[in-house]
Amino acid sequence: MTPDLHVIIPAGGAGTRLWPLSRRARPKFLLDLTGSGRTLLQATIDRLSPRAASMTIVTGAAHRDAVAAQLPEFAGARSDRELVIEPSGRDSMPAIGLATAIVRERHGADALVGSFAADHVIARPDLFLEAVDAACAAARRGYVTTIGITPTEASTAYGYIHAGEALEAEGTPPVPAGESGTRGEPRARAVSEFVEKPDAATARRYVADGYLWNAGMFVMRAGVLMGHLERLHPALAAGLTRIARSWDTPSRDRELARTWPTLTAIAIDHAIAEPVAAHGGVAVAPADLDLGWTDLGDFDALAELAGPGAEGAAVRVGAPGTAVFDGGSGQTVALVGVEDLVVVTTPDAVLVTRRSAAQDVKKVVDRLVQAGSAGLV
Amino acid sequence: MTPDLHVIIPAGGAGTRLWPLSRRARPKFLLDLTGSGRTLLQATIDRLSPRAASMTIVTGAAHRDAVAAQLPEFAGARSDRELVIEPSGRDSMPAIGLATAIVRERHGADALVGSFAADHVIARPDLFLEAVDAACAAARRGYVTTIGITPTEASTAYGYIHAGEALEAEGTPPVPAGESGTRGEPRARAVSEFVEKPDAATARRYVADGYLWNAGMFVMRAGVLMGHLERLHPALAAGLTRIARSWDTPSRDRELARTWPTLTAIAIDHAIAEPVAAHGGVAVAPADLDLGWTDLGDFDALAELAGPGAEGAAVRVGAPGTAVFDGGSGQTVALVGVEDLVVVTTPDAVLVTRRSAAQDVKKVVDRLVQAGSAGLV
Repeated sequence: MTPDLHVIIPAGGAGTRLWPLSRRARPKFLLDLTGSGRTLLQATIDRLSPRAASMTIVTGAAHRDAVAAQLPEFAGARSDRELVIEPSGRDSMPAIGLATAIVRERHGADALVGSFAADHVIARPDLFLEAVDAACAAARRGYVTTIGITPTEASTAYGYIHAGEALEAEGTPPVPAGESGTRGEPRARAVSEFVEKPDAATARRYVADGYLWNAGMFVMRAGVLMGHLERLHPALAAGLTRIARSWDTPSRDRELARTWPTLTAIAIDHAIAEPVAAHGGVAVAPADLDLGWTDLGDFDALAELAGPGAEGAAVRVGAPGTAVFDGGSGQTVALVGVEDLVVVTTPDAVLVTRRSAAQDVKKVVDRLVQAGSAGLV
Repeated sequence: MTPDLHVIIPAGGAGTRLWPLSRRARPKFLLDLTGSGRTLLQATIDRLSPRAASMTIVTGAAHRDAVAAQLPEFAGARSDRELVIEPSGRDSMPAIGLATAIVRERHGADALVGSFAADHVIARPDLFLEAVDAACAAARRGYVTTIGITPTEASTAYGYIHAGEALEAEGTPPVPAGESGTRGEPRARAVSEFVEKPDAATARRYVADGYLWNAGMFVMRAGVLMGHLERLHPALAAGLTRIARSWDTPSRDRELARTWPTLTAIAIDHAIAEPVAAHGGVAVAPADLDLGWTDLGDFDALAELAGPGAEGAAVRVGAPGTAVFDGGSGQTVALVGVEDLVVVTTPDAVLVTRRSAAQDVKKVVDRLVQAGSAGLV
């Protein structure tokens, strides 16, 4: 298969739910949280390389040096491995839109672009590429196409995708009889709607009804995304197009500095996915149940991923369900008579959280900021 | 009141239940665990000074320098502030017995000796001295006299004293009518027996029946203790007497090196208190209920003592009943969605224990020793 996907990786986010491992200056995507020897960003690049005609990482100036150090091929002048530095954070739509507009200028409106988070984990890259291929097939037909994650539990941590009928086969292989059903399959379906993170009862209903998790991955033709944007957010589209036209010219920096601050800060989900889905323009390629996807949204997810391997240097006296992460402190951790905890040690901070309360770790960061302890966040 | 008590402080014990604050090389008595600015040993000396004709600290060679640094008056040649270094640990009876035998040599058999732990905490030194005075009065009459702690709860962490009838008043002030009862009073009673740490149901019965906690403090005439020892453990008594007779002579070191290793290792409770009580020779002076005594036997006790003041540099998101102790790591500790925990940070180790499981912290030390991590204990 000829790599024909222009991969866009918006790399941002504070990752405050993984404090104190992640910090403002060292967000989640820069960390090797899986112990694989590759950071989440490096693993994202590795995973997508087989399909990538080009790759663009969009990040803030604060992370330029760290990204370039982790991925030296993005540090040079190669236009197929490019680092786009946002002058300021404007949420995901301007970041993805700028990279898309640049692709349209360079490769034409029919070029496929795909946007993927920099800080997710996928256990089975082979199954992921199958889903990407299915998404590309639907994208070529004009759909804004997302990759839907087949739920493994009734999680309340993710938004869900209500998928409708399968798209008529056209250029995608027909589904063999008997293979549709609970397992993900590489055939795209129309998206009825995107729904927000549900409560527990609603989550159970969604899973029973075959809804998929929304992992925020989108594949489409560059011209399709820009067309929707021109219709729904014309000022944003015009600004992005103006910057993109200057990109490979001497006026890039001036145009970026002048126009970027005027762009609306908005997420691609609200700007494009939700309104376009309401009019039948969004498809979803369900990934295989065995994909092994997680966004590592909190320490409970990280502990789940790490499993018994997270025992680190810990000494346990009756401590079931506990996970310990050493963020460079080198301390031996002893756990006595506790359960379902995560303990994280770093040189300047120690976190002890109940796994079921792990989403509240972000409140610690809020408190530290309020208390003027910004050096710790 | 003329200070006429020869105070003996056996300062030993591994204190493994307070790991990682306490270590082999830095046992509990050398630490300022109350935040008072004085270590437990220093506070013990402070508390007893008003009644002390002399004071002797008996400790191991490993702690000589630390004790001398904390208590410079014990580092010199003063015979009334003396540091006795045990060649090896032989439990409490040889340590207390040697200091007692030395007092008998120097001051005669009628001199009062009192043995007190080096690592207990007492909130009200004034009430403690009242109990010491009552104990001295009974001791002068020939009793081996202990100070009984009036229980504040049905603890399973302490041995109990079954006290019998009040001794007939003789040299002690009579009890004013109506003042006996649940509160401790400065009048000694006969001891029926010492009982071991009970289970919870037995502890409740003991408290209901007016039993007292055994804090391991003993006051008696030097000749009374040595007399019991000569009868019950003649070889031990003979060895101690031989060393004591050489103590203020040039042969001290030779005699100590030759005789000490032959002495039976035994606790004073088993050697003297229990058998003598069985024959009516032990009295108890109950301390006032408000004494505020604790042996700080584990982190639950330390958390209880520290109260809300133990919050340290912690950031709490819904963490009731938690205490944090910084043993020199300087780390900020964040607690999220947990309860009834103690967290201790030191430069090389972090402990997280459920308060009700705090007695099991010693198992961590066992594990570390087994794992060859002796540098951490």
